[in-house]
Amino acid sequence: MSEQIWRPHSGDYQWRDVAVLQYKDDSKAPFKDVTRQVLFEQPELACQWRYFEVQPGGYSTLERHQHVHAVMILRGAGRCLVGDQIYDLATHDLVTVPPMTWHQFRATGDEPLGFLCLVNCDRDRPLLPTAADLQELRRASAVAEFICT
Amino acid sequence: MSEQIWRPHSGDYQWRDVAVLQYKDDSKAPFKDVTRQVLFEQPELACQWRYFEVQPGGYSTLERHQHVHAVMILRGAGRCLVGDQIYDLATHDLVTVPPMTWHQFRATGDEPLGFLCLVNCDRDRPLLPTAADLQELRRASAVAEFICT
Repeated sequence: MSEQIWRPHSGDYQWRDVAVLQYKDDSKAPFKDVTRQVLFEQPELACQWRYFEVQPGGYSTLERHQHVHAVMILRGAGRCLVGDQIYDLATHDLVTVPPMTWHQFRATGDEPLGFLCLVNCDRDRPLLPTAADLQELRRASAVAEFICT
Repeated sequence: MSEQIWRPHSGDYQWRDVAVLQYKDDSKAPFKDVTRQVLFEQPELACQWRYFEVQPGGYSTLERHQHVHAVMILRGAGRCLVGDQIYDLATHDLVTVPPMTWHQFRATGDEPLGFLCLVNCDRDRPLLPTAADLQELRRASAVAEFICT
């Protein structure tokens, strides 16, 4: 898809020749109102560069995995859980999700939360929390209030 | 540098705990008014994610290399040469620089041109054009007028 050298932004965080995809194919993973666009993916590049957009009130899947996420907020505002902390997110903020760390992004404002997310091409599949994991996560009341499952 | 989970944008395209660096250490590489910030670089990530900013009238080095660039314009406008074509760049446009392809970015407007640029961590060093390369490049008059060396 990124064979073309120049792919202009066509407005509203969409790009020429970049498809707006459903966030996940995994029907068991809980999420709400999230889309995915793969901006760069090519044999010579060791990472896949994506753009995710979460509509107001929406949230990404609460999950963890060995691979890391490198994230830049591109539009809007929101909040995210990483580990046992919740962070307020504004446009252009940077977020690192370390290995095997629970994380979830939520659009808490009136506009979509859009973010760039970089991952290694060679990566493991996300794990969903077990009942025991959720019990552990919910021991912190702020986390219990934040997470959507 | 990206050990911290959350590094907020501190305004004007700078970030907490991200240093503004000189563009290159190579004193032989011609460029004008460019800075570099390394946003993400960590052992678990196969790519390095940088932010470059070119001041009005400035330009990056005309060069080529085996590794590819994945670029998103983050601020301002400008033009770039990739291969033998020149592209007009606006905010959020995407640019792919294929292997061994001559490229140069210029800030042609009144404000800085800022762009995100992704590269593999494991990559070759850029090559500068020889006199013969420049002669070849300048056969196209638009390219001859564009390039700064």
